[in-house]
Amino acid sequence: MSEKIKAAIVGSTGYGGVELYRLLASHPYVEVTSVTSSSSPGSLFSEGYPHLTDIHQEPLDEVNPELLKSKADVVFLATPAGVATKLAPQLLETGLKVIDLSGDFRLKSPALYEQWYKKQPADEAYLEQAVFGLAEVYGEQVKGASFISNPGCYVTATTLGLVPALEAGWIKPDTIIVDAKSGVSGAGRGVSLGNHYSEVNENLKAYKLNKHQHIPEIEMVLSDAAGEPVVITFSTHLTPMTRGIMATIYAKVDGSRSAADFIDLYRSYYEGRRFVRVRGEGILPSTKEVWGSNYCDIGFAFDERTGRITIVSVIDNLVKGAAGQAIQNLNLMMGWDESLGLQFVPVYP
Amino acid sequence: MSEKIKAAIVGSTGYGGVELYRLLASHPYVEVTSVTSSSSPGSLFSEGYPHLTDIHQEPLDEVNPELLKSKADVVFLATPAGVATKLAPQLLETGLKVIDLSGDFRLKSPALYEQWYKKQPADEAYLEQAVFGLAEVYGEQVKGASFISNPGCYVTATTLGLVPALEAGWIKPDTIIVDAKSGVSGAGRGVSLGNHYSEVNENLKAYKLNKHQHIPEIEMVLSDAAGEPVVITFSTHLTPMTRGIMATIYAKVDGSRSAADFIDLYRSYYEGRRFVRVRGEGILPSTKEVWGSNYCDIGFAFDERTGRITIVSVIDNLVKGAAGQAIQNLNLMMGWDESLGLQFVPVYP
Amino acid sequence: MSEKIKAAIVGSTGYGGVELYRLLASHPYVEVTSVTSSSSPGSLFSEGYPHLTDIHQEPLDEVNPELLKSKADVVFLATPAGVATKLAPQLLETGLKVIDLSGDFRLKSPALYEQWYKKQPADEAYLEQAVFGLAEVYGEQVKGASFISNPGCYVTATTLGLVPALEAGWIKPDTIIVDAKSGVSGAGRGVSLGNHYSEVNENLKAYKLNKHQHIPEIEMVLSDAAGEPVVITFSTHLTPMTRGIMATIYAKVDGSRSAADFIDLYRSYYEGRRFVRVRGEGILPSTKEVWGSNYCDIGFAFDERTGRITIVSVIDNLVKGAAGQAIQNLNLMMGWDESLGLQFVPVYP
Amino acid sequence: MSEKIKAAIVGSTGYGGVELYRLLASHPYVEVTSVTSSSSPGSLFSEGYPHLTDIHQEPLDEVNPELLKSKADVVFLATPAGVATKLAPQLLETGLKVIDLSGDFRLKSPALYEQWYKKQPADEAYLEQAVFGLAEVYGEQVKGASFISNPGCYVTATTLGLVPALEAGWIKPDTIIVDAKSGVSGAGRGVSLGNHYSEVNENLKAYKLNKHQHIPEIEMVLSDAAGEPVVITFSTHLTPMTRGIMATIYAKVDGSRSAADFIDLYRSYYEGRRFVRVRGEGILPSTKEVWGSNYCDIGFAFDERTGRITIVSVIDNLVKGAAGQAIQNLNLMMGWDESLGLQFVPVYP
Repeated sequence: MSEKIKAAIVGSTGYGGVELYRLLASHPYVEVTSVTSSSSPGSLFSEGYPHLTDIHQEPLDEVNPELLKSKADVVFLATPAGVATKLAPQLLETGLKVIDLSGDFRLKSPALYEQWYKKQPADEAYLEQAVFGLAEVYGEQVKGASFISNPGCYVTATTLGLVPALEAGWIKPDTIIVDAKSGVSGAGRGVSLGNHYSEVNENLKAYKLNKHQHIPEIEMVLSDAAGEPVVITFSTHLTPMTRGIMATIYAKVDGSRSAADFIDLYRSYYEGRRFVRVRGEGILPSTKEVWGSNYCDIGFAFDERTGRITIVSVIDNLVKGAAGQAIQNLNLMMGWDESLGLQFVPVYP
Repeated sequence: MSEKIKAAIVGSTGYGGVELYRLLASHPYVEVTSVTSSSSPGSLFSEGYPHLTDIHQEPLDEVNPELLKSKADVVFLATPAGVATKLAPQLLETGLKVIDLSGDFRLKSPALYEQWYKKQPADEAYLEQAVFGLAEVYGEQVKGASFISNPGCYVTATTLGLVPALEAGWIKPDTIIVDAKSGVSGAGRGVSLGNHYSEVNENLKAYKLNKHQHIPEIEMVLSDAAGEPVVITFSTHLTPMTRGIMATIYAKVDGSRSAADFIDLYRSYYEGRRFVRVRGEGILPSTKEVWGSNYCDIGFAFDERTGRITIVSVIDNLVKGAAGQAIQNLNLMMGWDESLGLQFVPVYP
Repeated sequence: MSEKIKAAIVGSTGYGGVELYRLLASHPYVEVTSVTSSSSPGSLFSEGYPHLTDIHQEPLDEVNPELLKSKADVVFLATPAGVATKLAPQLLETGLKVIDLSGDFRLKSPALYEQWYKKQPADEAYLEQAVFGLAEVYGEQVKGASFISNPGCYVTATTLGLVPALEAGWIKPDTIIVDAKSGVSGAGRGVSLGNHYSEVNENLKAYKLNKHQHIPEIEMVLSDAAGEPVVITFSTHLTPMTRGIMATIYAKVDGSRSAADFIDLYRSYYEGRRFVRVRGEGILPSTKEVWGSNYCDIGFAFDERTGRITIVSVIDNLVKGAAGQAIQNLNLMMGWDESLGLQFVPVYP
Repeated sequence: MSEKIKAAIVGSTGYGGVELYRLLASHPYVEVTSVTSSSSPGSLFSEGYPHLTDIHQEPLDEVNPELLKSKADVVFLATPAGVATKLAPQLLETGLKVIDLSGDFRLKSPALYEQWYKKQPADEAYLEQAVFGLAEVYGEQVKGASFISNPGCYVTATTLGLVPALEAGWIKPDTIIVDAKSGVSGAGRGVSLGNHYSEVNENLKAYKLNKHQHIPEIEMVLSDAAGEPVVITFSTHLTPMTRGIMATIYAKVDGSRSAADFIDLYRSYYEGRRFVRVRGEGILPSTKEVWGSNYCDIGFAFDERTGRITIVSVIDNLVKGAAGQAIQNLNLMMGWDESLGLQFVPVYP
């Protein structure tokens, strides 16, 4: 490798953008050449994020496709819903590669996007072009692509926990219930009473039951895996911690399968993919065991009394659920080892 | 009321005992006349619990039925599994009223107890005598009883969330899945790596899936409500907070019922019982909203796409899930208003 | 006592107001007859604070002196800085008793108020009239007063830890350094990046060093105790917890005094005042040991190597640091036992 | 660099050992060839630390100098107090380089060690040989050394905050007071009531005032910088977070110096040392801003009213306070850039 590629990060205010910066800073083949801010171009990254003092020293750039084209080869969009809709096509037109971390290009159906996001959908041609970057499932399509739509955090934890079983036909699709729990950083850096420390600390809160905008995205992947439309019950809970998502997944098993069978099936499905770790019998992963890393850990418990399998899938929402998987997708796009720059150990404790 | 009754607390080391002390200290009709310790009788309560400095000044008593009889009218047992098995009958023999907060007398079947607790069960005559103190369901049987077995914390949150629907036949019993989450105090004060701060903080952990010893107790209550044997899938999660339990309950609805119908049904079932608050449409309770109080708050979300109802039931595990409900049972036993000494506002924030 | 007095709470949005409500709800001689809201009169208290569901059922009143006069005997003002400046005199004019929890009437000097609060000071006549309600120090002046200015949270913890030593001349005033730490609720319910969960959790932050607006208030009390002007170094830190203040206080000891001497001095000073608990030798209080209660606990460590005494003083910032002490002042004003309605045990764990 | 050096970690049970493993795993010039366990050699690292699943796959080695010599070039000792006393000399005898993270070789005086650690001191010859690895102060001595005693966590935060001012004679040594606060991981992984989640959460606790075993080590460094014996007042507090240390340091300024003067002085002292970041005027670092990284961030506030400077110094106790600085010392010993393998961005949020 003679030369690094140049990357720009659009959306430096939010947690997704700053996590991209952290991870890219130690990527051996990538140089971050531009970090932008729509609200305060010209200021320093470290003004909003003092932990970056002495680390990122250049002023923030404005969000300008021509400027980005002149400075970068690939652009990561870590912007609020609705921004990439317009911006991604502009960047693609200039010949830049684009990895969008927002939800704007995840759903292939504009109508579905409008229904769940209450916003104007993107142009259908670009929706079609965008490759859904669930790396362990659609990695082959990611290779060589120039426009990636990076999956949502809940989506990643849930679908990695379900796809192998659905593809194999081992569980009954209409019995799937997903009880998901997330740390607070998943809601972003924007201030609201809902993320006020005194309201969240020592509190557990269910929210958006059956209404989370990640539901159609999950069902899109699950339907694809099952080969038939899948409709699920999906609940989300806000947990008093900063990082981490756990999806506790319930489904009726079709036929006679043990937890050990599931472990074998998943290990076989994910063979060669280092970021999915399938745990041994009787072992369930906790969110801290993947904290700060790109792993998705999966464990199983089979209940003989009810014939249900419980699948526990955990990720760090900001890494595998956002910035880490985006970099994994960059690696795949570039034909590199998917783990480049992501081969670090989870932070524990 | 001319005179207070005298109460003793056996098991002052654990969180259940110290919470009983806190609550009883402001009960208008009760005086705590003895607090015992099997490990260090003669020492001060405030040595192990400095927050009681200058509050409880008498030395801890030894655990001795004769002594307890001489000092108290009613004894609360906040002891580890297996202690009340022998001790409760001895106390009852002396004529004392007994409220046992452990699991020793909850299951009517000795075989079931042995299977789930891996301990010698209690004498069947006493198992029969013990009234299961789920106050809002079995309150009539509690009135006038002299021996109460207080329900488990997970049991209280789960069954209060399910009994009205099961009794009414509105949900299909074989589709019930309970995804329960608990704060760390539920595991008691004994030290272990599992409750080490650095291991629990910023962590979410699933444990004892389908194996929690509260399962048979829950199924006992649910079967009673349904009029047929009910078998459930039950998961427990350790959440990084001290107090609080949330049971997120899923079931298929039998017939055509809206969330509003469920709200009406539950409000009607719990009419006159101030400690169950059924929330309005679209409102889900969080654990902090009952923190430090005896409330059980219940909310509903109906998913038209799947025909499932999601029921969210929250309690403070140490109050409604242990010490508070025990006092509520004492009130019922004595023929008092069930809310005596428990009419305080949740602590928020 | 034949009849309860009627109390109104102005400022129901903030944590001070809602904590007043919680505590007053179990006061034996007080009935809360009005809770006001300047932003949404007519709405329910439980809309903003769902933990009050089914507890407070009347709509919130508007902030109107005439209305308050018609409904209440005493008004608690839990309003942001600058509101009581105008409102308290209006209420006093109608003959209402007023307890102001804000900083508007704490400093006797209008110039000092303007300097530290950057706001228009109150009318001097009313500044003069207001009795500074540090209950264990100025309790005699509180008795029979009709206008109380309730001390700040940092002020209460710090001055209760210093007054006896300063009055006795045991420490050198010009060597006092106070390193104070507070939970997040002290900053109120208003949302800001500074109290965003993901920013505060797993973080410890020093702020407003030598600049906190409580400094002149502390020095006012300390100077009064020392009989000479006292100037201190005062630091504040934001700690990742909801409630609790610890003031770690350092000073050079004048003469030869041991920790035991200090303990005796303080126990003697606070004799008969149940809310100050002076800990025994070698024992230091932690914030959780007063959590949810009106206690101020104080412990000592003497360093022979340097001749310095370290005084550790802890309170719950929302109780002894705000609402609890306000009620203690009401009790004193009314000639009641100062602990009425406040005789509860700290919540632990 | 043609070949990596081989490193062994002794003490894989504790947080220091596992953090060494995490950091060394991404060091470009180091390969971890042995991880030992005295309690369960032959087992897997991931049994005790499931986050290492699929990462470290070799069984744990026994603690055996010959074995270590055959597998490694350098040994990191992350063992409890008293173990390295004997083990380090044995390893050095075989010709291995040794970096000891415990307190066994930090104090040059055996008598002082015995007094503060209540344990048998190490052989004086080895005490003499051990270079005290406070990298930014004694880095020149570390270069080329083969035996390093790595400083304590409190020591690192405190002395980096004081040495430049003391060397310059800008503060009065006999006025130094250090109010230090630490996250819970500093106390290690051993279970005790003191680190039980329910006891630590929502709690702030002062402990070991004037008695912490790091005091003589701090005074050793400060005396060296001042050129005269320095005695300080030193307090430690347990804060409800996993990682992070803040030392809030107070001292009287000698002469007329502003905060800006201190900033200049410190920036000059630490010039070229990337791991100390001296913050600009009016900016104070928080612990989260160095979380997971090897930085020590320092800020200043000068109080004109009292003539005191307040210095706020923060580190991650497990990185700069232990494993990170140990690796920094390895880099210096080897003649490499001190930041090798440590050039990562703090984890935020």
